[in-house]
Amino acid sequence: MVKYPSGSHAAINGQIFKPHSKRRARKEINFSDRGMTLEQQINESNKYYLEKGIAVVHKKPTPVQIVKVDYPKRSRAVIREAYFRQASTTDYNGVYKGYYLDFEAKETKNKTNFPLKNFHQHQIVHLEQCLAQAGICFTLIGFTSLGRYFALPASIVIDAWRTPNKSSLTLEEISTQAVELQSGFRPTLPYLEAVDKFIAGRRN
Amino acid sequence: MVKYPSGSHAAINGQIFKPHSKRRARKEINFSDRGMTLEQQINESNKYYLEKGIAVVHKKPTPVQIVKVDYPKRSRAVIREAYFRQASTTDYNGVYKGYYLDFEAKETKNKTNFPLKNFHQHQIVHLEQCLAQAGICFTLIGFTSLGRYFALPASIVIDAWRTPNKSSLTLEEISTQAVELQSGFRPTLPYLEAVDKFIAGRRN
Repeated sequence: MVKYPSGSHAAINGQIFKPHSKRRARKEINFSDRGMTLEQQINESNKYYLEKGIAVVHKKPTPVQIVKVDYPKRSRAVIREAYFRQASTTDYNGVYKGYYLDFEAKETKNKTNFPLKNFHQHQIVHLEQCLAQAGICFTLIGFTSLGRYFALPASIVIDAWRTPNKSSLTLEEISTQAVELQSGFRPTLPYLEAVDKFIAGRRN
Repeated sequence: MVKYPSGSHAAINGQIFKPHSKRRARKEINFSDRGMTLEQQINESNKYYLEKGIAVVHKKPTPVQIVKVDYPKRSRAVIREAYFRQASTTDYNGVYKGYYLDFEAKETKNKTNFPLKNFHQHQIVHLEQCLAQAGICFTLIGFTSLGRYFALPASIVIDAWRTPNKSSLTLEEISTQAVELQSGFRPTLPYLEAVDKFIAGRRN
């Protein structure tokens, strides 16, 4: 059984299989994010940043291996057989004031910790590779039950992920080492405020 | 009829429908690129750059709208209905020494000029957006019949594309304003040599 990056599943869910009941349920718990998934908040924020000329960040398409395509006359091509492929990168990258941004977004319903198994090896390796090229690399972590969102430097996640027998990062560990983001209106999730802090921290 | 980015088709061809006869035919004309398409040369080069820790550049997956997915018991999910989506970016981006790289690759069999219709509006707009964020943006243009490859700054392509009644860039215009690349072994297409020149030119 091939393991697929959760990013792919998120994309598929985001596209078609979103259970509305689940969204309403979350809405009752927390109004600040207007019941949007973390991915929806990021996509809305990226759209805002793009429209305002602030940054160019896009979510990467779900990688699929296309096997069979039909070309019906006078209508668009239809993919009839394809398979999900393991991604080799994170879900989001782009450019902001000349800086290369690269990040992965993950949600948890947990209230006290974030399980590291949510990160796949290829995501950790890619973040390490981008850090080695002086990219601004981080992860956006959403505690959906709490309605709290954090921008955590990739180095923290990588170190934790590479630590034997460490299965999760506690909310405490995250909140003390990450930049907490306030879900807003425009942008929905102003993660560039955290990026500005990462850039400033790099300068010092 | 939806127009698809040529990049998508290239990816599809690259994945499945590659006509070997065509590749051999080209091989006879030109040995330097070992009969590889421009995309294959770039992907091999990116693999080399990644393995050597020189740069992190990936081709973006073909964007598809997934409509129907089967989940057979004890085997991997199968996409049974999906459609090609219009991409909103170029095919390649990544990070090199802290610089954001963004480029599109195009081939032509022409010997004297490169038709601008090969570029789609979304690619031009995306390159403009990335330039505004101080990214290193360019296009890799392959004259396959000549076995000549060029790294042309995005600004040149954008200006030409936005010029009324200008349908192509002549080989002369390209060769005088681009960095010509020599197809080699490792990397197959050393386009970072051109990037180094773009970066140096920016500093001055």
